Amino acid sequence: MSKFLHTKFSSLKPYDTSGEIESMNGYIRLNTNESPFPPSPKAIEYAHKASESQNYYPDPECTQLAGRLAEMYSLKPTQIVFGNGSDEILNFLFAGFCENGAAFPNITYSFYKILAEFHCVDFITVPLKDFRVDPSSYTAMKGRTIFIANPNAPTGIALSLNDIETVITSNPQSLIVIDEAYVDFGGESAVCLISKYDNLIITRTFSKSRSLAGARLGFCMTNENIAQDIRNIKNTITPYNINAMTQAAGLGALDDEEYTHKNIAAIRRVRDETRARLQEMGFTVLESSTNFLFAKHESLSGEKIFNALKERRIMIRHFTNPPEISDFNRITIGTSEEMKIFLEAVREIINEN
Amino acid sequence: MSKFLHTKFSSLKPYDTSGEIESMNGYIRLNTNESPFPPSPKAIEYAHKASESQNYYPDPECTQLAGRLAEMYSLKPTQIVFGNGSDEILNFLFAGFCENGAAFPNITYSFYKILAEFHCVDFITVPLKDFRVDPSSYTAMKGRTIFIANPNAPTGIALSLNDIETVITSNPQSLIVIDEAYVDFGGESAVCLISKYDNLIITRTFSKSRSLAGARLGFCMTNENIAQDIRNIKNTITPYNINAMTQAAGLGALDDEEYTHKNIAAIRRVRDETRARLQEMGFTVLESSTNFLFAKHESLSGEKIFNALKERRIMIRHFTNPPEISDFNRITIGTSEEMKIFLEAVREIINEN
Repeated sequence: MSKFLHTKFSSLKPYDTSGEIESMNGYIRLNTNESPFPPSPKAIEYAHKASESQNYYPDPECTQLAGRLAEMYSLKPTQIVFGNGSDEILNFLFAGFCENGAAFPNITYSFYKILAEFHCVDFITVPLKDFRVDPSSYTAMKGRTIFIANPNAPTGIALSLNDIETVITSNPQSLIVIDEAYVDFGGESAVCLISKYDNLIITRTFSKSRSLAGARLGFCMTNENIAQDIRNIKNTITPYNINAMTQAAGLGALDDEEYTHKNIAAIRRVRDETRARLQEMGFTVLESSTNFLFAKHESLSGEKIFNALKERRIMIRHFTNPPEISDFNRITIGTSEEMKIFLEAVREIINEN
Repeated sequence: MSKFLHTKFSSLKPYDTSGEIESMNGYIRLNTNESPFPPSPKAIEYAHKASESQNYYPDPECTQLAGRLAEMYSLKPTQIVFGNGSDEILNFLFAGFCENGAAFPNITYSFYKILAEFHCVDFITVPLKDFRVDPSSYTAMKGRTIFIANPNAPTGIALSLNDIETVITSNPQSLIVIDEAYVDFGGESAVCLISKYDNLIITRTFSKSRSLAGARLGFCMTNENIAQDIRNIKNTITPYNINAMTQAAGLGALDDEEYTHKNIAAIRRVRDETRARLQEMGFTVLESSTNFLFAKHESLSGEKIFNALKERRIMIRHFTNPPEISDFNRITIGTSEEMKIFLEAVREIINEN
C-alpha cells in the first residue's frame, strides 16, 4: 500500500478474478456463468456499425435501449438506468442507498459484501435455510437496504413472486433490491411489482442469457423517483458509462429475442439432463433456476473434484467459504458437447477414487 | 429525491451533459472536444473481431493494452491501470487518494469539483494567473492531492515540463495528478518524471487524439506501488470495467500510430489557421496546445455568439461560470471544411451585429 491511499482502504478486499481469466485457451470454461453461445449476429452487426463513429461520445442516457426495454417491460424509459454491467448498478446502490445499512443472505453473490465494505456500509448477513432464502428471516431489518439475488447464486434456487412480495411488504422502510441476473433461466421476475410498491429496485444484466458478458451492460428498473436518484449518482461519477458499441450490441440482442429464447431453452434442457446424470453419479445437486448447477458428491471433496477437472482442462468454480458450501462446486452449463465431456471426466474421476 | 437516497447526496450536482448530446443530426459538433476523424480502420476491425466472442467476460487486467502501452512509454505493464475513460480513473483517485483534501485550478475541467463534492473531499481552488496555471501558487498544499490538467481546459494553455517538476518538488507530501487528456496536441508529457518521483500519476485518454470517445478508454501511469492501490480500488468496485470491444479498439488504435499522427497534424494545422482568422475578426484567442480554442470577441458577448451559431446549427461550448470566462467560448477543432463553415458563420454574425 502506498502512503497516498486513504487509510480507510488499508485492508481493501477486491473481488477475486484470479483464476477466472487466466489463460484459458483450450479449457472448457464452466466457471463464470457465461453463455456458451456467441452473441446474436444482430448484436455483432449493430456494434460493428457503431464502431465506425466512435470518435463521438456515446449517448449518456442510452435513449434507444431505455425506450426498447421500457416497451418490453411496460415501464417508462425514465424508470430505467444503465450500468457497466449490473455490478456498476450495485456499486451505485451501495454508494448511495444504504444509509441505514444493508442486509443480504450469508451465501450469495460475493460482490455485495465487497461493495458494502468498500462503501463503509454497516451490513448483516441473513442465514439461508436449507440452502434457500427464507422470506420470514427478513424482518426487523430497521430500514436496512435488502439485497436478494433471485434466483440466488451460487445455490441456483429461486424464490417465488409471493415470497419476494412478503419481503417487500414486511419491510416498508427498507429499499428492496432484487438482483435478477439469472431470472431468464427459470425464475419469476418481480418487475410487475414495481408499480405496486415504492421501495423496489430490480437489477438485470445482458451478461448471461443475452451472451454479452464481454460488452458490460446491465440496468435497473424502479420507480421514476428512485431512478432519478440513481441517474444523478451515475451522472456525477461516470456520465458516459456505457460505450457506443455496447449500447448498439444491446439493441441488437433485443432485436433478436428469438435467438435468446432458443439459447435459454437449450441451456435449460442441458442443465436438467446434466443434473440428472450427476445425481446418478452420487451428487446432491440443488434444484436450479439458473444457467449453473451447485453440486456436492457423496464421497469426493469439492476441492478434489475441482482440481481433478482443472487437470483435465475443465474449469468449474470452487468456493472455500463458508464451510457449509466447501464441498459444493458451481458448474456453469455449457453446450451439450461441453457437458458430455464434463460428465465423462467426472465419471473418470469418481472411478479413479 | 427519494426517501432512500443517502442524505449526504441531497444536493448532488451531476456533470451536465445536457445540450451536449441533444439530437445533433445535421449539426456541426464543435462543443465536446471530440475528434472529427473516425477511428482507425484497425480499431474498427479489431473491435469487430472481439465482438464475436463477447459471451465471455473481458480481461479484467487489459493485459495486451498494458503490454503495448508499457512498451511505448518504457514502463512496466504493472504501472498502468485502465478506466472507463480517464474520468473513471479520476473517480478512483478522488475516492481513494484525497484523505488530506484536493487542490486544483479555479478554471479547469469541471469534473474535478464534481468528484470532490461527491466523495466529500475537502478541496481548494487555486486561481489562474492571466489564464495560466501558476506553479508558484502551488505551495503550502499541506498534503492535498493536486490535480492539474496539462494542457489545461477550457483555456488550452500548457505548462512546461519544468513547471510541472516545480509543482512536484514543491509538494513532496502531495500526490500530483497530471491529466494529459490533450497532451498529444502540443503539450509536453510528464511521463518521463514517473521514475524520478514517487508522488506522480499521469492520466491519459483514447477519447481525443485516438478518435475513441465513444469507446470509453482511459488509463493512468504511475509507480507500481500506487498503481497497485488504484488497481485494488478498481477491482473492488468494477473488476471488469473495460469491455472486450473497447480493449480491442484501443489495441487497433495503437497498431495504427501513423493514422493518429496524421490526424493530430491536421488538427494542429487547422487550429492555428482558425486562431489566426479569429484574431483577424477581433477575437482574443488564448494560445492552444490542444484540439480546441478558447476565444472572446472584442464587442460581441460569448452568449450572443454561442446562440447565433446554434441557430446556424453549429454547436460550440459556452461557460457561464466563473464570470471572467463568460465572454469566452470553447471551440473544438473540426475538419478543415467544418472550420471554414464555422468561420463564415462567425463573420456573418459579426457583420449582422
